[in-house]
Amino acid sequence: MQSAESKFNKKSLLLALRRYSSTINDMEKTILLPSLLRDVPADEVWDCEAAEESCCDLYGNYLMLKAIRNIVESGLVPLDDHKAKNNTLNKTLEPLLDTDPEVLFRFHLSGLFSVMSDLTKKSQSLTDKYMDIIGVAK
Amino acid sequence: MQSAESKFNKKSLLLALRRYSSTINDMEKTILLPSLLRDVPADEVWDCEAAEESCCDLYGNYLMLKAIRNIVESGLVPLDDHKAKNNTLNKTLEPLLDTDPEVLFRFHLSGLFSVMSDLTKKSQSLTDKYMDIIGVAK
Repeated sequence: MQSAESKFNKKSLLLALRRYSSTINDMEKTILLPSLLRDVPADEVWDCEAAEESCCDLYGNYLMLKAIRNIVESGLVPLDDHKAKNNTLNKTLEPLLDTDPEVLFRFHLSGLFSVMSDLTKKSQSLTDKYMDIIGVAK
Repeated sequence: MQSAESKFNKKSLLLALRRYSSTINDMEKTILLPSLLRDVPADEVWDCEAAEESCCDLYGNYLMLKAIRNIVESGLVPLDDHKAKNNTLNKTLEPLLDTDPEVLFRFHLSGLFSVMSDLTKKSQSLTDKYMDIIGVAK
Protein backbone atom coordinates (compact mmCIF):
# COMPACT_ATOMS: atom_id res chain seq x y z
CA MET A 1 0.00 0.00 0.00
CA GLN A 2 2.73 2.40 1.02
CA SER A 3 4.53 1.90 -2.26
CA ALA A 4 1.39 2.63 -4.29
CA GLU A 5 0.71 5.71 -2.18
CA SER A 6 4.24 7.05 -2.49
CA LYS A 7 4.16 6.41 -6.24
CA PHE A 8 0.97 8.49 -6.46
CA ASN A 9 2.25 11.26 -4.22
CA LYS A 10 5.70 11.30 -5.71
CA LYS A 11 5.08 13.96 -8.31
CA SER A 12 2.89 16.46 -6.48
CA LEU A 13 4.58 19.75 -5.58
CA LEU A 14 2.04 20.75 -2.95
CA LEU A 15 2.33 17.37 -1.24
CA ALA A 16 6.13 17.60 -1.42
CA LEU A 17 5.95 20.99 0.32
CA ARG A 18 3.59 19.65 2.99
CA ARG A 19 5.71 16.52 3.47
CA TYR A 20 8.80 18.66 3.91
CA SER A 21 7.12 20.87 6.48
CA SER A 22 5.88 17.85 8.44
CA THR A 23 9.32 16.17 8.34
CA ILE A 24 10.95 19.32 9.71
CA ASN A 25 8.34 19.51 12.47
CA ASP A 26 9.17 15.89 13.41
CA MET A 27 12.88 16.76 13.32
CA GLU A 28 12.29 19.68 15.68
CA LYS A 29 10.28 17.51 18.09
CA THR A 30 13.01 14.86 18.10
CA ILE A 31 16.04 17.11 18.37
CA LEU A 32 15.53 18.49 21.87
CA LEU A 33 19.13 19.61 22.23
CA PRO A 34 20.18 21.02 18.85
CA SER A 35 23.41 22.30 20.38
CA LEU A 36 24.65 18.66 20.38
CA LEU A 37 24.91 19.05 16.61
CA ARG A 38 27.48 21.83 16.88
CA ASP A 39 30.87 20.99 15.42
CA VAL A 40 29.64 17.62 14.12
CA PRO A 41 30.91 17.54 10.53
CA ALA A 42 28.08 17.61 8.02
CA ASP A 43 29.77 15.52 5.35
CA GLU A 44 27.99 12.26 6.16
CA VAL A 45 24.53 13.74 5.82
CA TRP A 46 25.35 16.49 3.40
CA ASP A 47 27.97 17.16 0.79
CA CYS A 48 29.85 19.79 2.77
CA GLU A 49 31.96 20.89 -0.18
CA ALA A 50 28.87 21.88 -2.10
CA ALA A 51 27.25 23.50 0.90
CA GLU A 52 30.27 25.10 2.46
CA GLU A 53 28.84 28.58 2.27
CA SER A 54 25.88 28.15 4.54
CA CYS A 55 26.49 25.14 6.75
CA CYS A 56 29.68 23.57 7.88
CA ASP A 57 28.34 21.49 10.74
CA LEU A 58 25.11 19.64 11.43
CA TYR A 59 23.88 22.55 13.52
CA GLY A 60 24.19 24.80 10.46
CA ASN A 61 22.21 22.27 8.43
CA TYR A 62 19.57 22.10 11.17
CA LEU A 63 19.11 25.87 11.15
CA MET A 64 19.03 25.98 7.36
CA LEU A 65 16.36 23.25 7.11
CA LYS A 66 14.21 25.14 9.62
CA ALA A 67 14.68 28.44 7.75
CA ILE A 68 13.49 26.78 4.53
CA ARG A 69 10.48 25.30 6.38
CA ASN A 70 9.56 28.81 7.52
CA ILE A 71 9.65 30.05 3.92
CA VAL A 72 7.59 27.05 2.76
CA GLU A 73 4.98 27.61 5.47
CA SER A 74 4.74 31.34 4.87
CA GLY A 75 4.34 30.70 1.15
CA LEU A 76 6.32 33.87 0.48
CA VAL A 77 9.11 34.16 -2.05
CA PRO A 78 12.07 35.69 -0.21
CA LEU A 79 14.14 38.58 -1.51
CA ASP A 80 17.51 37.27 -2.56
CA ASP A 81 19.80 40.25 -2.29
CA HIS A 82 21.96 38.57 0.35
CA LYS A 83 22.28 35.33 -1.60
CA ALA A 84 25.04 35.98 -4.09
CA LYS A 85 25.08 32.39 -5.37
CA ASN A 86 21.54 32.75 -6.63
CA ASN A 87 22.74 35.59 -8.85
CA THR A 88 25.41 33.29 -10.26
CA LEU A 89 22.68 30.80 -11.15
CA ASN A 90 20.58 33.53 -12.76
CA LYS A 91 23.55 34.87 -14.73
CA THR A 92 24.42 31.43 -16.07
CA LEU A 93 20.81 30.93 -17.01
CA GLU A 94 20.27 34.36 -18.55
CA PRO A 95 20.45 33.23 -22.19
CA LEU A 96 18.05 30.39 -21.41
CA LEU A 97 15.53 32.52 -19.58
CA ASP A 98 14.19 33.73 -22.92
CA THR A 99 13.16 30.21 -23.71
CA ASP A 100 9.62 28.91 -24.25
CA PRO A 101 7.75 29.86 -21.02
CA GLU A 102 6.08 26.45 -20.87
CA VAL A 103 9.52 24.81 -20.75
CA LEU A 104 10.65 27.28 -18.09
CA PHE A 105 7.50 26.57 -16.06
CA ARG A 106 8.11 22.82 -16.21
CA PHE A 107 11.79 23.29 -15.42
CA HIS A 108 11.16 25.29 -12.23
CA LEU A 109 8.22 23.11 -11.16
CA SER A 110 10.30 19.91 -11.48
CA GLY A 111 13.31 21.65 -9.93
CA LEU A 112 11.39 22.83 -6.90
CA PHE A 113 9.80 19.41 -6.46
CA SER A 114 13.18 17.74 -6.72
CA VAL A 115 14.95 20.04 -4.25
CA MET A 116 12.09 19.61 -1.74
CA SER A 117 12.37 15.81 -1.95
CA ASP A 118 16.12 16.08 -1.50
CA LEU A 119 15.81 18.37 1.53
CA THR A 120 13.19 16.06 3.08
CA LYS A 121 15.65 13.14 2.85
CA LYS A 122 18.42 15.28 4.32
CA SER A 123 16.21 16.22 7.25
CA GLN A 124 15.45 12.54 7.91
CA SER A 125 19.18 11.69 7.79
CA LEU A 126 19.94 14.54 10.16
CA THR A 127 17.34 13.28 12.64
CA ASP A 128 18.82 9.76 12.40
CA LYS A 129 22.29 11.15 13.00
CA TYR A 130 21.05 12.96 16.11
CA MET A 131 19.56 9.69 17.42
CA ASP A 132 22.97 8.09 16.88
CA ILE A 133 24.66 10.90 18.78
CA ILE A 134 22.39 10.56 21.82
CA GLY A 135 22.68 6.76 21.59
CA VAL A 136 19.03 5.97 20.90
CA ALA A 137 18.38 3.11 18.51
CA LYS A 138 16.02 3.88 15.64
CA MET B 1 -5.13 50.28 -1.57
CA GLN B 2 -4.60 48.24 -4.68
CA SER B 3 -0.94 49.12 -4.73
CA ALA B 4 -0.47 48.06 -1.10
CA GLU B 5 -2.36 44.83 -1.75
CA SER B 6 -0.38 43.97 -4.87
CA LYS B 7 2.85 44.73 -3.02
CA PHE B 8 1.84 42.28 -0.31
CA ASN B 9 0.66 39.60 -2.71
CA LYS B 10 3.49 40.08 -5.12
CA LYS B 11 5.87 37.58 -3.62
CA SER B 12 3.60 34.68 -2.68
CA LEU B 13 3.95 31.58 -4.84
CA LEU B 14 0.62 30.06 -3.84
CA LEU B 15 -1.20 33.30 -4.60
CA ALA B 16 0.63 33.58 -7.92
CA LEU B 17 -0.56 30.06 -8.82
CA ARG B 18 -4.15 30.87 -7.79
CA ARG B 19 -4.05 34.17 -9.64
CA TYR B 20 -2.83 32.43 -12.78
CA SER B 21 -5.55 29.83 -12.59
CA SER B 22 -8.22 32.47 -12.12
CA THR B 23 -6.87 34.59 -15.02
CA ILE B 24 -6.99 31.58 -17.34
CA ASN B 25 -10.54 30.82 -16.24
CA ASP B 26 -11.49 34.41 -17.13
CA MET B 27 -9.69 34.05 -20.46
CA GLU B 28 -11.67 30.89 -21.21
CA LYS B 29 -14.97 32.57 -20.34
CA THR B 30 -14.15 35.55 -22.58
CA ILE B 31 -12.78 33.69 -25.57
CA LEU B 32 -15.93 31.97 -26.76
CA LEU B 33 -14.56 31.29 -30.23
CA PRO B 34 -10.90 30.31 -29.76
CA SER B 35 -10.69 29.34 -33.43
CA LEU B 36 -10.64 33.08 -34.25
CA LEU B 37 -7.11 33.05 -32.84
CA ARG B 38 -5.87 30.61 -35.46
CA ASP B 39 -3.20 32.01 -37.77
CA VAL B 40 -3.03 35.28 -35.83
CA PRO B 41 0.71 35.83 -35.35
CA ALA B 42 1.74 35.61 -31.74
CA ASP B 43 4.55 38.12 -31.89
CA GLU B 44 2.61 41.03 -30.43
CA VAL B 45 1.61 39.17 -27.32
CA TRP B 46 4.50 36.78 -27.18
CA ASP B 47 8.05 36.73 -28.37
CA CYS B 48 7.50 34.22 -31.16
CA GLU B 49 11.18 33.67 -31.77
CA ALA B 50 11.65 32.41 -28.25
CA ALA B 51 8.50 30.35 -28.31
CA GLU B 52 8.63 29.06 -31.84
CA GLU B 53 8.67 25.43 -30.79
CA SER B 54 5.30 25.24 -29.11
CA CYS B 55 3.17 28.09 -30.37
CA CYS B 56 3.34 29.97 -33.60
CA ASP B 57 -0.08 31.58 -33.49
CA LEU B 58 -2.33 32.92 -30.75
CA TYR B 59 -4.34 29.71 -30.81
CA GLY B 60 -1.18 27.79 -29.91
CA ASN B 61 -0.56 30.20 -27.04
CA TYR B 62 -4.16 29.81 -25.89
CA LEU B 63 -3.84 26.02 -25.77
CA MET B 64 -0.48 26.23 -24.01
CA LEU B 65 -1.80 28.59 -21.31
CA LYS B 66 -4.72 26.22 -20.67
CA ALA B 67 -2.40 23.19 -20.50
CA ILE B 68 -0.28 24.95 -17.87
CA ARG B 69 -3.42 25.87 -15.91
CA ASN B 70 -4.37 22.19 -15.86
CA ILE B 71 -0.96 21.28 -14.45
CA VAL B 72 -1.21 24.08 -11.85
CA GLU B 73 -4.69 22.96 -10.77
CA SER B 74 -3.77 19.27 -10.59
CA GLY B 75 -0.70 20.17 -8.52
CA LEU B 76 1.17 17.37 -10.25
CA VAL B 77 4.67 17.64 -11.65
CA PRO B 78 4.52 16.37 -15.23
CA LEU B 79 6.94 13.90 -16.74
CA ASP B 80 9.22 15.72 -19.11
CA ASP B 81 10.42 13.05 -21.51
CA HIS B 82 8.76 14.74 -24.49
CA LYS B 83 10.17 18.15 -23.66
CA ALA B 84 13.67 18.09 -25.08
CA LYS B 85 14.34 21.76 -24.31
CA ASN B 86 13.98 21.06 -20.61
CA ASN B 87 16.87 18.62 -20.92
CA THR B 88 18.95 21.39 -22.49
CA LEU B 89 18.22 23.55 -19.45
CA ASN B 90 19.14 20.71 -17.09
CA LYS B 91 22.36 19.97 -18.95
CA THR B 92 23.43 23.62 -18.86
CA LEU B 93 22.64 23.70 -15.18
CA GLU B 94 24.27 20.37 -14.31
CA PRO B 95 27.42 21.84 -12.73
CA LEU B 96 25.26 24.23 -10.72
CA LEU B 97 22.84 21.61 -9.48
CA ASP B 98 25.40 20.47 -6.89
CA THR B 99 25.18 23.85 -5.30
CA ASP B 100 23.97 24.69 -1.80
CA PRO B 101 20.41 23.24 -1.63
CA GLU B 102 19.11 26.38 0.07
CA VAL B 103 20.28 28.46 -2.91
CA LEU B 104 18.72 25.95 -5.30
CA PHE B 105 15.44 26.07 -3.36
CA ARG B 106 15.35 29.88 -3.51
CA PHE B 107 16.30 29.82 -7.19
CA HIS B 108 13.45 27.50 -8.21
CA LEU B 109 10.93 29.17 -5.90
CA SER B 110 11.70 32.63 -7.34
CA GLY B 111 11.87 31.19 -10.85
CA LEU B 112 8.47 29.53 -10.60
CA PHE B 113 6.96 32.68 -9.10
CA SER B 114 8.43 34.78 -11.86
CA VAL B 115 7.28 32.53 -14.72
CA MET B 116 3.75 32.37 -13.25
CA SER B 117 3.57 36.18 -13.12
CA ASP B 118 4.83 36.36 -16.69
CA LEU B 119 2.28 33.82 -17.94
CA THR B 120 -0.53 35.63 -16.11
CA LYS B 121 0.36 38.84 -17.97
CA LYS B 122 0.54 36.96 -21.27
CA SER B 123 -2.91 35.52 -20.67
CA GLN B 124 -4.31 39.00 -20.01
CA SER B 125 -2.71 40.32 -23.19
CA LEU B 126 -4.11 37.40 -25.16
CA THR B 127 -7.60 38.11 -23.86
CA ASP B 128 -7.21 41.80 -24.79
CA LYS B 129 -6.06 40.81 -28.26
CA TYR B 130 -9.14 38.61 -28.68
CA MET B 131 -11.37 41.53 -27.69
CA ASP B 132 -9.62 43.62 -30.35
CA ILE B 133 -10.23 40.89 -32.95
CA ILE B 134 -13.94 40.69 -32.25
CA GLY B 135 -14.10 44.49 -32.09
CA VAL B 136 -15.20 44.87 -28.49
CA ALA B 137 -13.71 47.80 -26.61
CA LYS B 138 -12.13 46.97 -23.26
